Amino acid sequence: MTISPLAPEGFPELAPIDGVTLSTAASGMKYTGRDDMMLMRLDEGTALAAVFTLSDTAAAPVKWCRERVSEGIPTRAVLVNAGNANAFTSIGGMEAVTSCCRGIASALRCDVGAVMMASTGVIGEPLAYADLARHFPALASGQASWQSAAEAIRTTDTFAKGASATATISGTEVKITGIAKGSGMIAPNMATMLGFVATDAAIPQAILAALLADATRRSFNAITVDSDTSTNDSVFLAASGKAGNAQVSGPDDPELAGFRAALNEVMQDLAKQIVRDGEGASKFITIDISGATDDSAAHRIGLAIANSPLVKTAIAGEDANWGRIVMAIGKAGAAVDQSRIGVTIGGIRIAADGARVETYDETPVAAHMKGQMIDIDVSVGTGAGTARIWTCDLTHGYISVNADYRS
Amino acid sequence: MTISPLAPEGFPELAPIDGVTLSTAASGMKYTGRDDMMLMRLDEGTALAAVFTLSDTAAAPVKWCRERVSEGIPTRAVLVNAGNANAFTSIGGMEAVTSCCRGIASALRCDVGAVMMASTGVIGEPLAYADLARHFPALASGQASWQSAAEAIRTTDTFAKGASATATISGTEVKITGIAKGSGMIAPNMATMLGFVATDAAIPQAILAALLADATRRSFNAITVDSDTSTNDSVFLAASGKAGNAQVSGPDDPELAGFRAALNEVMQDLAKQIVRDGEGASKFITIDISGATDDSAAHRIGLAIANSPLVKTAIAGEDANWGRIVMAIGKAGAAVDQSRIGVTIGGIRIAADGARVETYDETPVAAHMKGQMIDIDVSVGTGAGTARIWTCDLTHGYISVNADYRS
Repeated sequence: MTISPLAPEGFPELAPIDGVTLSTAASGMKYTGRDDMMLMRLDEGTALAAVFTLSDTAAAPVKWCRERVSEGIPTRAVLVNAGNANAFTSIGGMEAVTSCCRGIASALRCDVGAVMMASTGVIGEPLAYADLARHFPALASGQASWQSAAEAIRTTDTFAKGASATATISGTEVKITGIAKGSGMIAPNMATMLGFVATDAAIPQAILAALLADATRRSFNAITVDSDTSTNDSVFLAASGKAGNAQVSGPDDPELAGFRAALNEVMQDLAKQIVRDGEGASKFITIDISGATDDSAAHRIGLAIANSPLVKTAIAGEDANWGRIVMAIGKAGAAVDQSRIGVTIGGIRIAADGARVETYDETPVAAHMKGQMIDIDVSVGTGAGTARIWTCDLTHGYISVNADYRS
Repeated sequence: MTISPLAPEGFPELAPIDGVTLSTAASGMKYTGRDDMMLMRLDEGTALAAVFTLSDTAAAPVKWCRERVSEGIPTRAVLVNAGNANAFTSIGGMEAVTSCCRGIASALRCDVGAVMMASTGVIGEPLAYADLARHFPALASGQASWQSAAEAIRTTDTFAKGASATATISGTEVKITGIAKGSGMIAPNMATMLGFVATDAAIPQAILAALLADATRRSFNAITVDSDTSTNDSVFLAASGKAGNAQVSGPDDPELAGFRAALNEVMQDLAKQIVRDGEGASKFITIDISGATDDSAAHRIGLAIANSPLVKTAIAGEDANWGRIVMAIGKAGAAVDQSRIGVTIGGIRIAADGARVETYDETPVAAHMKGQMIDIDVSVGTGAGTARIWTCDLTHGYISVNADYRS
């Protein structure tokens, strides 16, 4: 598989997180010559928050995790396998998850309810539990880098995705490190993606859940590759508390301002890496919406543009066909005042007040379209709502990947 | 432009409709060597019903027509131009429509409010009224076949689309003939399409409007090519009354049963021709949904499958990757009971009761996928709602057409 032309130059330096241990293994289930299993072990006292796909056909591991979250047993481990999504596998699929978590619990000597699982890969095929189980002892004692973990969870990803940041809580430095996988079937809510983010900050579970929800809205729920929603999307955020920072009072505690910014940075970085690895992507597109009724209307308009095959193919063809953006605004189903719509591409004003500007010259827009980073700004003139959405273009590469490869 | 591999063998025989006169002309505005204007003249006493795009950025001619419909002045003519959509053209765009309709009204000596207009083509470019106006005298007196009219209204269409049917109302034979254009930017409601259907039946305007709304739901609103919604979709249904059938009492009059069936037949035929001309299409896909909460939920699930790039690319690749259908069901946002979902492709049962059937053998499904006509049946087990949706696959051809051509 060729590496995406939008890939970062290399894998970033990731700070280890005290209290969080990773390990990987190769099940041989689907891929050869690479690891496809990952275990994230969490020291006692670690808080964990998670968000999951909104699909009505959510996979067995997602259902398992949702039940565990509602039970409130502190999580001690998250098991991941790549290559089989264990989705639409009925009772057998849930039995496979239960067996996996029981096996990991036994190897780690913890409660079975303290083990979560995330799967990614083909939908509808039974998960061969035994192929995974034989690696549980090695996973339970092994140790791997964040980079190895990021590599093990890939499916159609052409590069491993990771990000790190630091922040200060009441004078104590804390670290945040995350990895993610995702390339196709990427749409809010959420992308076909798995995300594992950890921090050594001490943050109670309820506050952690609020911080994760907010950061997800601004990152993984603000990207789209192809408008398709996965059955398996899951993002986990673990806080080991090893940094020993002072207690925080709530998600809006001013002492958490730096942490929130760092968490946004890590999660947006991971989300943007997923777009950069969008199947067949040749351009990275940033869409800014302003003047919508509210932020949620702006989000909807941004996604209508980002998901429009005609907008995405025009960008792939480096064609300044901005009329398609107007078409997509019109189909978003958000209130817009056509006579106040403005469109700017690459900083060049194309349309204002509902029509093309009289002095419009396509030359600089055409030049911008030839670049790798495409910026679209749309104002709709009905309020103060804003949103920023990231996506990629729709190319022959997307067709090739998805017409030939069973993901 | 290569003709779609799914095109019908030839243009069908279309019955002329007494009271309806067509003419065509070449503006030279965008295309060379072909007509790109069409005028449909309606004899006095003709009733007209119309449905339009639901886009919030509807084009100037759509706005004009909506106002005319609400005024209730009997329509005497519909002017069409292909190549410029006159969409997002602000006040200048509305002035161009007004000038066109005034010009046609003057040539036909009728009220300006009796002239409708429909445009299709590039969005955002001012419409050069003068280029059209010089052909009004010729259009007002000319006469052309339905086939010539169907050819004149094309944009990216690779073949002209027409259909005819007959029915009997209280013992009197009536004819229905229609033409349409559309290929990309095809999604309910409605496709980037223009449709012109006429009958010599005598049917009052209010009843005609009800019949058109119902037939549109089962035809043009049941197809999708790429999920993009046009700014210009318009379908007109004219009834000249020349057949002289007995009066009908309402849309549900039993004497109209045959007419309703014939109207559905003509409009579904046109709708399916649009799918057959879907940009880059190589497979024609019929999706039947059953067991949904209601028909509207079934419709939504069918469209989620039909619009999924991953489903469409899998079919393009002749890959029996049915898990993507399950994914699409999950993202539809309609209530489904995962444990009762069933999936059948080409008549072969793949999944039942929320999991793959144990005896599943991919061989016959893979064979069906190699054909040109793909049949997908999905049952979701929550009620009695059904829907049938038609779409095409997503191929390299779609990317080529839309990345290179400014439509």
